Amino acid sequence: MTGSMIVKNEVRRIASFLACVCLLVIPGISANAQAVDPLPSWANGGVKQAIKAFVADVTSEGGANFVPRAKRIAVFDNDGTLWSERPWVQGLFIEQMLRNAAKRDPSLGDQQPYKAAIENDREFFEKGGMRDYQVAIRRTLTELNREDFDAEVQAFFASARHPVLDVPFQQTVYQPALELLDFLRANGFKTYICSGGGVDFMRAMSGDFYGVETDEVIGTSYKKELHEIDGKWVLVSTSELNTFNNKEQKAVNIDLHIGQRPLLVMGNAGGAGDIGMLGYSQGREGLSLQLLIDHNDAAREFAYAEDDNASLNAAKKNGWHVISMKDDWLTIYPQGDN
Amino acid sequence: MTGSMIVKNEVRRIASFLACVCLLVIPGISANAQAVDPLPSWANGGVKQAIKAFVADVTSEGGANFVPRAKRIAVFDNDGTLWSERPWVQGLFIEQMLRNAAKRDPSLGDQQPYKAAIENDREFFEKGGMRDYQVAIRRTLTELNREDFDAEVQAFFASARHPVLDVPFQQTVYQPALELLDFLRANGFKTYICSGGGVDFMRAMSGDFYGVETDEVIGTSYKKELHEIDGKWVLVSTSELNTFNNKEQKAVNIDLHIGQRPLLVMGNAGGAGDIGMLGYSQGREGLSLQLLIDHNDAAREFAYAEDDNASLNAAKKNGWHVISMKDDWLTIYPQGDN
Repeated sequence: MTGSMIVKNEVRRIASFLACVCLLVIPGISANAQAVDPLPSWANGGVKQAIKAFVADVTSEGGANFVPRAKRIAVFDNDGTLWSERPWVQGLFIEQMLRNAAKRDPSLGDQQPYKAAIENDREFFEKGGMRDYQVAIRRTLTELNREDFDAEVQAFFASARHPVLDVPFQQTVYQPALELLDFLRANGFKTYICSGGGVDFMRAMSGDFYGVETDEVIGTSYKKELHEIDGKWVLVSTSELNTFNNKEQKAVNIDLHIGQRPLLVMGNAGGAGDIGMLGYSQGREGLSLQLLIDHNDAAREFAYAEDDNASLNAAKKNGWHVISMKDDWLTIYPQGDN
Repeated sequence: MTGSMIVKNEVRRIASFLACVCLLVIPGISANAQAVDPLPSWANGGVKQAIKAFVADVTSEGGANFVPRAKRIAVFDNDGTLWSERPWVQGLFIEQMLRNAAKRDPSLGDQQPYKAAIENDREFFEKGGMRDYQVAIRRTLTELNREDFDAEVQAFFASARHPVLDVPFQQTVYQPALELLDFLRANGFKTYICSGGGVDFMRAMSGDFYGVETDEVIGTSYKKELHEIDGKWVLVSTSELNTFNNKEQKAVNIDLHIGQRPLLVMGNAGGAGDIGMLGYSQGREGLSLQLLIDHNDAAREFAYAEDDNASLNAAKKNGWHVISMKDDWLTIYPQGDN
């Protein structure tokens, strides 16, 4: 944490304390949650104001833009939107699964991608990109039953650390995103994840990390089959892809799972994966809000952009709000920034 | 409504009124919801006692069988479980869509299945079974966008009446099922529908009829595509099946949408469609409850069974609770029984 961050955090802590004291001791001021800033990690810029005005608008009973609770649906991408995606965390999990498989069957150790996982050969995986990951996923993550898979993910998160930030992954989630999730839920929104990540992988961490329950997660999935094993019915994953939840497919799967256009969508620039669901949300009758994170903060997070700037261009064309990580977020991580 | 039903309803109404008065006027009695029977349409038999004991058990904080709210998932079949399935309501809707299509293009009027729909040729559809319905669905329900489809379903329910009971379809839902849904929700359960019916068809009525929101409905679906039409992104259905949500596939889709084994499942005997999800629920670690409706009440509803009794046999083998419509339900329909 830098010196200026410490000062900033201290000022915020004192301000929060004073706000609490005021609510307790000054008669006539009710303990109204609005009195305390619900988004303290967000700079007082246009994006924060837009979010607060939007939520006030759609929750104003009797107002022209009032939206009933059943239609207050907020959808978030995961990688690069709720937590850092450099490196891709699920990829690290897959590499651990490969190493585990090679431990069980040492003859695999000379073959790729097991060899690369054992030798922590980052170049191999980074060059191969999604293709090699897909092969690896099929070899290691399928043919596992639902409960065993959960246990593997839990075991991974119990010990794994971010290779650059050197912290457990729960500390690589974005503090401003956590505050936004809480703020929306306090205002009657249901908060969903819709991500290219594996749905079962995310479900094993989304409750602890974000307060997003298993039935609020939409992701990439493989087809499963119901088998009776030792008198008990279990679901077993096949290696046949069910849905790769990216780009247009995110809108398709939001419809499949949620059945209505989201009132609010937040995604990020990076792989152009969120344009489809942002646009689908904007097609909603009446008000809606679209938020797109720009990863422009090399000092505190990771700076990267798309070659063709597709997401930022779409945001400009369609009037979506762009979140500058550098300028709009006072803090990135829950435990402060390094 | 029979004379005995009128008397029964009147007695229940007076009992409810007296219970309310007691809560209001007798000091020291708190307005505890448990004081009023939450399942007044259920006979005081073993099934009702099992449901109440189960809910008390899983909601007892500190108890050995306590289940946190995020895991209180109840899943209901729809046709024959939440409302009458004789005839299949979605089939009637499809026939209306066929008639509408023939109105727009009169050349269709001489072709099947349009001709049968126009002439109300029940035999044609009953003989053809699912096969003809499938053809009809593909011809009339696909290539519609999401919002237009909703409007078609709403229009259908605004005027359609049950051909035997001669009431709007909202009066063909089962009163005991409505009470169970309310009772579970009051105890922190999320209540889902998982049915072989079309997911978009059910979503257009499940909120009004059952208080089940669009994101709590799992059903049969066709693949969709995101198209930009006149500058707006809309989802358009193709004629390619995405999932036929029946039998084992119900367990698969519960996992896809909810991501955990349900705590409670209620289905019905008729097409053996619910055995898979009942068994999947029972495989849950710890307590779970399985309920299977037996349509044995020819006087008040419709009496039918499976040729091989597969569902009732599975219930017997696995210890699932069988609901005898004749004996366990005092009332079938919200407005009383004819």
